[in-house]
Amino acid sequence: MPLHESDPSGALGRNLIERVCVADTLTRAADLHPHQVAIVDGARRLSYADFDRQVDQLGHALLDLGLRHQDVVAVMARNCTELLLTYFACARAGLVCAPVNLGLRPSEIAWCLRDAAARVLIVEAPLADMAKGVLAEDLPQLAHRFHTGAEFDGLLASGRSAPLEVEVHDRDVVQLLYTSGTTSNPKGVLTSHLAVVMAGLTGALALQGGPGYTSLVALPLFHCAMLNSVVLPLMVIGGTLVLTQGFEPQQVATLFEAEGVHLVVLLPMMYGLLLGHPALQGRTFPAMRRAMYAMAPMPHERLTAIHAMFPNADVVLGSGQTEFTPATCVQRPEHQWSKAATWGTATAMTRVAVMDEQGRLLPRGQTGELVYRGPQVMNGYLNMPEESQACLRHGWFHSGDVAHIDDDGAIWFEDRYKDVIKTGGENVASIEVERCLMDHPDVAEAAAVGLPHPHWGEAITGVVVRRPGAELDAAALMAHCAGRLAGFKAPKAIVFVSEFPRTGTGKLQKHLIRGQHKDLYQR
Amino acid sequence: MPLHESDPSGALGRNLIERVCVADTLTRAADLHPHQVAIVDGARRLSYADFDRQVDQLGHALLDLGLRHQDVVAVMARNCTELLLTYFACARAGLVCAPVNLGLRPSEIAWCLRDAAARVLIVEAPLADMAKGVLAEDLPQLAHRFHTGAEFDGLLASGRSAPLEVEVHDRDVVQLLYTSGTTSNPKGVLTSHLAVVMAGLTGALALQGGPGYTSLVALPLFHCAMLNSVVLPLMVIGGTLVLTQGFEPQQVATLFEAEGVHLVVLLPMMYGLLLGHPALQGRTFPAMRRAMYAMAPMPHERLTAIHAMFPNADVVLGSGQTEFTPATCVQRPEHQWSKAATWGTATAMTRVAVMDEQGRLLPRGQTGELVYRGPQVMNGYLNMPEESQACLRHGWFHSGDVAHIDDDGAIWFEDRYKDVIKTGGENVASIEVERCLMDHPDVAEAAAVGLPHPHWGEAITGVVVRRPGAELDAAALMAHCAGRLAGFKAPKAIVFVSEFPRTGTGKLQKHLIRGQHKDLYQR
Repeated sequence: MPLHESDPSGALGRNLIERVCVADTLTRAADLHPHQVAIVDGARRLSYADFDRQVDQLGHALLDLGLRHQDVVAVMARNCTELLLTYFACARAGLVCAPVNLGLRPSEIAWCLRDAAARVLIVEAPLADMAKGVLAEDLPQLAHRFHTGAEFDGLLASGRSAPLEVEVHDRDVVQLLYTSGTTSNPKGVLTSHLAVVMAGLTGALALQGGPGYTSLVALPLFHCAMLNSVVLPLMVIGGTLVLTQGFEPQQVATLFEAEGVHLVVLLPMMYGLLLGHPALQGRTFPAMRRAMYAMAPMPHERLTAIHAMFPNADVVLGSGQTEFTPATCVQRPEHQWSKAATWGTATAMTRVAVMDEQGRLLPRGQTGELVYRGPQVMNGYLNMPEESQACLRHGWFHSGDVAHIDDDGAIWFEDRYKDVIKTGGENVASIEVERCLMDHPDVAEAAAVGLPHPHWGEAITGVVVRRPGAELDAAALMAHCAGRLAGFKAPKAIVFVSEFPRTGTGKLQKHLIRGQHKDLYQR
Repeated sequence: MPLHESDPSGALGRNLIERVCVADTLTRAADLHPHQVAIVDGARRLSYADFDRQVDQLGHALLDLGLRHQDVVAVMARNCTELLLTYFACARAGLVCAPVNLGLRPSEIAWCLRDAAARVLIVEAPLADMAKGVLAEDLPQLAHRFHTGAEFDGLLASGRSAPLEVEVHDRDVVQLLYTSGTTSNPKGVLTSHLAVVMAGLTGALALQGGPGYTSLVALPLFHCAMLNSVVLPLMVIGGTLVLTQGFEPQQVATLFEAEGVHLVVLLPMMYGLLLGHPALQGRTFPAMRRAMYAMAPMPHERLTAIHAMFPNADVVLGSGQTEFTPATCVQRPEHQWSKAATWGTATAMTRVAVMDEQGRLLPRGQTGELVYRGPQVMNGYLNMPEESQACLRHGWFHSGDVAHIDDDGAIWFEDRYKDVIKTGGENVASIEVERCLMDHPDVAEAAAVGLPHPHWGEAITGVVVRRPGAELDAAALMAHCAGRLAGFKAPKAIVFVSEFPRTGTGKLQKHLIRGQHKDLYQR
């Protein structure tokens, strides 16, 4: 049916022309690079033209289920083509895609699905057993469930292949990701089409690549680091996504060579696995142009080793958070050595500043809370108006990170805001105490937390995992600290533990550590 | 005053965080590159930090005049710092900037100012005489007029230098440019913040440059080619704008070297002036990385000569229109020779297609009207709801250009839609007839137009400027065409003229040519 017959008011036509919609990025790529491979998924290769056509089909099929504008479609899957098809089909149909964090327990996943009022759940077939645990819970809104394979393929085949054209607005929600929560329960982050497209354009700007530029997708697609900092930027330039599941160093190295991978984003520990693998000693990957690492700076020796493995690559740190889709700062190539300990500088559409507790911006060099502005900001947390409001104070998004910014605009992270310990009227960055604890040769891991104390308010406490075989005791470690830290920064007590509670991505859960030991000084 | 005191509802704070605003691009550049030179204007050099601060001041000063949200500030100026300060101050204050086309007559400028209901006019001091002619007309809305120099500086100094923070929304209008009109009277094109920022990001993507990347601004800033395809893209990457007025080849060459210019956008005839200047024979400019040309493809010999002058530059054609802010397609570097006769391929946020008269998209290779989609589209024409509606039919923006798209996505322009001649039931592209006329050695310039004819409907007519000294007559030129064109494409008559009517940017005004000769076959 020609558009003018279905659109007497012209509102849809106007929307199709002017809108910012994530799925239009795919259509533009399919127009410009129809035969270019968009996705490599094991033995499957999907061109941009076929990707775009299947997204039309799947979008029609989802709407034919009776879904309405902004209904939620959840996906439980490791990295696979079906996850990406579903994401872009939702974008094109005006639906919301919620990729599920597979690090959560089934009851937590069910909690998220209820919170999201998810109407459809798509399950990667090998995860069927895990999904049973989720589906055994009460999910009153969930009306449809499809496994990948015959069920998903049947759903796809049921949709018309004509272009799917419905109204989608810039600030409509396109994705719902639950943060893994270092300080509280998961929060559902609602992200708009505009935010995702802006992240795609600014990510593409940093890549300086063109059609055929290839990225490995090794981290899970249910994290914004892949979904927003890799998938969309690659699509903007007509690049190729090479999907893997899990992280097996030899398989990854084989893909680097076989696919001529130009970009990889990994956690520091994954670089460690690559560098430490016996079969990869002395191997180099000259095609790599950009090796990014997330989460935290790396020691100089490891950076040197990564540069040796990828002799033609920039090795740069990127930081951000789900609430900012996510990249707020990335190291510029000229800072990869000189500012390797920083979080880099602000990305192209994000402004970064430092603020005190009264809402005043602080000059360069002074320490305060990192705050952001820019259209990559989330619409808000789902069903949490107070939390949404709380992080949008004084005209800035509050990151909860403590840092200062130097004269080159580089961001020096100091601590999580909630990890600043307030003891006897002084503020102490827990990270400073942790560095001192880690300096002791018998310490494997250390966290410094403030615990309730009748005299000090909070008492600085070292929670420590010893190196295997070490016989370190609390008195010796406190003496080590006393010789290196100002008196008010030295731990009042040391607690030895065998391991730390961590999130699915390996972040320390300090709120749980504090909870475990909250009565230490009350005994 | 802290923001929370002036913003009890939080609406302003929310807007400052999430909005897309042209002036925020400047603030981000000032944050990241405070000491980088933003503007070189003769002996004046303005850093990003000072630029940003002066924009705050001027924005406050304009609002202190009593201007309200979306009021229009017009600027009559050649390329100068004051024009850019005014543009960004309007953007930051929620006002609309209307740079005046200096190619118009004073009465036409006055018509535009009335149409725009401009409240303020800023005049570059050397243009005071020209402005007198404008101000002599009836301009009931115009309340304030400032000349550059003491008056403008006084206005600037009257503004507070604190950050100016007012609500500005993505789709608010930031600029109003009047199209010079190849087919009708000027139309005021209303362009949004979102459109300009998207043009900035996609322009920056194509540059692949970083801080300090330098562009000459030789074409007038009152055209979108500079304002939107050069100023914003350079600001996104922290680059430097080198302003010139007029086009003097030796001055331009001196700036290429003195400022290390990386990017230049010129009209084909300006490259001709550079190449033909006696003092520049054999000169090369190795710093140049990108030499763009607008309007129309260039012959192979001239391209070769431009490559010799700029040995390290891509030499690429960009096309577009004011209504699309403006770049819709640009040649990719890999096409600069193989597709030199095309308009290039679609820019990153614009979709390009070809449509028939019934609103059906046509497959690759077929000829029809070029149509566009994307957030760079204008909001509409000022005070022209019917014309605005007319170019937004069938869910696409209609360009008025006739073209086909090849398998590589490259756009082969064939004609202006209105220049297709409908003769005896056949459609003939005027450009094909013009190429045949131009092939004759005695023809300097040629236009083919359809003129009303009792038998043919429109009769193809060659309107020709002879080469100086040539004695070509109509019979000889018609015989030349008859031997090279199909019978229905050959001109029915030839008219010799001494020159053609053209717009300020040199575009042929075919509607005026048609008007001059409309009675040819009625005599």
